[in-house]
Amino acid sequence: MSRVRPVVERMHGYVPGEQPRGGTVVKLNTNENPYPPAPGVIAAVAACAAADLRLYPDPMATALREAAARRYGVASEHVLVGNGSDDLLTMLMRTFVGPDDVVVYPEPTYSLYDTLVTIQEGRSLTIPFPADFALPAALADADGRVLIICNPNSPSGTFTPLDVIEDLARGREWIVVVDEAYVDFAPATALPLVARYDNVLVLRSLSKSFSLAGMRIGLAFGHPELLAELAKVKDSYNVSRVAIAAGVAALEDYTWMEQNVARIVASRARLSKELRAVGYDVLPSAANFVLARRPGEDQGAVQAALRERGVLVRHFATPRLADALRISVGTDEEIDRLLAELRALG
Amino acid sequence: MSRVRPVVERMHGYVPGEQPRGGTVVKLNTNENPYPPAPGVIAAVAACAAADLRLYPDPMATALREAAARRYGVASEHVLVGNGSDDLLTMLMRTFVGPDDVVVYPEPTYSLYDTLVTIQEGRSLTIPFPADFALPAALADADGRVLIICNPNSPSGTFTPLDVIEDLARGREWIVVVDEAYVDFAPATALPLVARYDNVLVLRSLSKSFSLAGMRIGLAFGHPELLAELAKVKDSYNVSRVAIAAGVAALEDYTWMEQNVARIVASRARLSKELRAVGYDVLPSAANFVLARRPGEDQGAVQAALRERGVLVRHFATPRLADALRISVGTDEEIDRLLAELRALG
Repeated sequence: MSRVRPVVERMHGYVPGEQPRGGTVVKLNTNENPYPPAPGVIAAVAACAAADLRLYPDPMATALREAAARRYGVASEHVLVGNGSDDLLTMLMRTFVGPDDVVVYPEPTYSLYDTLVTIQEGRSLTIPFPADFALPAALADADGRVLIICNPNSPSGTFTPLDVIEDLARGREWIVVVDEAYVDFAPATALPLVARYDNVLVLRSLSKSFSLAGMRIGLAFGHPELLAELAKVKDSYNVSRVAIAAGVAALEDYTWMEQNVARIVASRARLSKELRAVGYDVLPSAANFVLARRPGEDQGAVQAALRERGVLVRHFATPRLADALRISVGTDEEIDRLLAELRALG
Repeated sequence: MSRVRPVVERMHGYVPGEQPRGGTVVKLNTNENPYPPAPGVIAAVAACAAADLRLYPDPMATALREAAARRYGVASEHVLVGNGSDDLLTMLMRTFVGPDDVVVYPEPTYSLYDTLVTIQEGRSLTIPFPADFALPAALADADGRVLIICNPNSPSGTFTPLDVIEDLARGREWIVVVDEAYVDFAPATALPLVARYDNVLVLRSLSKSFSLAGMRIGLAFGHPELLAELAKVKDSYNVSRVAIAAGVAALEDYTWMEQNVARIVASRARLSKELRAVGYDVLPSAANFVLARRPGEDQGAVQAALRERGVLVRHFATPRLADALRISVGTDEEIDRLLAELRALG
C-alpha cells in the first residue's frame, strides 16, 4: 500500500506472545503472575462498574501518581502513568528519537525497542551481551540520544548491579532508561538514581508483580522536566478510570504483591534446579521467568511439542535465542506439569 | 532540555478540557454523555473484577472486533480497536505521516490533529471553513498523504453530507479519515464508504454516544490491508480486558444508546433555541454539543464567570473561536442551570 510510510511498510511489527481465548492451557509464555491481584484491587474494579464511566478519566491520573509517590517515597511530579509500560516506551521514543537519532541497548533484549526505534526512523546501536549476559563494557564507549537497559533483562532474566548503571548515567548527556518491568522479583531498583540524575528514567509495570497484565498500568519515574516533555506526546486520556482505581488499590496492598513475589521467587529456584536436572543450562534469574538453554539445539520443536500438549512457553527464532526457551514461573502445579511434559518429550 | 526532539520541545501538546476531581459542577465542557452506560455494560465491568485481570488481554481485541462487525454489518477484518479514538489517530499518523508528509484538514477542527502531525514532523495543510462551516471546496484541489474530516465537526457541530466526502475519496491517492466521534448524533455515517474505497478510514468512539468516556474505546473501520499497517504501530496490548468486555456489552445494547441519543438530540434543539433567545448565534448541530457565538465579543470572560458559578463550558482562545463557547448537551436540568447562569450574567 503505497501511502504507507516506507519504514512501516517494510517492518513486521512486534509480535506478542500467544494469548489463547479461554481454554485450559498451562500458560507460561508471557510472564503473567499465576496469582490473582489483591482483594482490594478486585473491589476497586467492581466499584468502577457505575454511571461514572460516562466521564473522562483524569488526564494525568493524579490519584495514581499520588499513590505511587507515597509508595516509592518520591514527589508525584516525578511520576507519569502509562497504558502499560509499552505506552511509556512509545512516549519516550516519540519524545527523544527523531530520524537518524541513535538509541543504544544491549541485545538480545525486549524486541519492542527495535520496533519503536524503526517507527521513529531512528537507528538502533545494539551491543551484544556476552554468554553470561553481564552488561557489555562497550556500552560505556557508545553514544546516542537514549540508552535502554532492561533490568532484569528479558529474555535472559539476568540482573545488572546498580553501580554499573549509575556509571553509565553519571556525567552523560543521553537519557538512561531502566526498564524495570520485572524488578520486584530482583534484588534492587534504580529508583534512587532518579533523584540524583536528571537523565535517568525508570519504567515500571503493574502487569507482572501486581498481577494486573489485563488492566494496562505502567509507571515512569523521572525528573519533572523530562516527564513534562513525555506528557506532551501522551494521549490525553491514556489511562482509563478503571485502571487508575485498580492501580491505586494495587499500590495500597504492597504486602499482597510481596507475598506473591516471594512464592514466585521460591518456585523459580525449584524450576531452575529441575530444568538443570533435565539437561538445560539455566541463567540465574532475577525475574518471574527463566531462560533455559540447550546449547546448539534449536528449541522451536520443543516449544511446538509442548504447545501440542497444552503447555505454552516462549521461543524466539533468532540466532542468539533459538536454542533456548523462556519459561514463566507459574504455580508449583504448573511447573510440575511443564516438567512432566518435558521429561515425556525426552 | 537539550536531549528532547526540537519539534517536541517547541510544542505545547494538546490541552484537554478540565476534568475536575469530584465536586458538583455542571460539566458541559468535554462532550460527555449525561446518561449512564447500559446496565449490561455495568454488569460486564463488574464481571471483570476477578482473578483473570492477571492475564494479558487479547492483543487484537477479537471479541470486540466481532461485536462491532455484527453491529455494523462488516467483516471483523475491517475493524481495529483503539484505546479511545485518540489512540487510533496516533496510530494512523505514525503509519502514514513521516517528516514533511502533508496532512490536509479544514479548520477550526479537533486541535489534536495539529499536535499529532507536529510530533511526526509532518506538515499540516489547513483550509479555513467558511462562516457556515460547509466543507471548503478548495479541499478538492489540495493534496497530501492524509485528509481528515471530523464529521460532525468539533467544535462547530456541523455535518458534511456523505456525497461531499465521497467525492474527496473517489479516485484519490490520499487516505481519507472520517473522524466520526459524534456521528451517532448525526443523520448519516460514512461507514458504507469503507466497503467501496480502500482509502477511507472511519473512526468511531464509544466515549460519547455510548457513555463510555472513562473506559477508553475507539473503533477504526477500513480496508484490512490498511488496518494491518496500523496494527504494526499499535501498542501490543492497547485495550484492557475491562475495555474489551465493556465495549462488547455496549454494542450489544444498541437500543440503550439510541434512546440516550434521542433524548440528547431533543435537548440539543431546546438548548439551541434558548441560547438564540439570550443573544447567541448557534450553528445547526449534528453532535452532542453546540457552538454558541456572539460575533466579535470574546467569550473568555463568560466562560470564566460560568466556571465561578459552577458551570463548565469550553472556550478556545484562538482568533476564529474566541467569540464562541462550545457547550455540551447535558440533561435538561443542567441546561436550565446553564441558561439561568447565562441570564444572570446578562
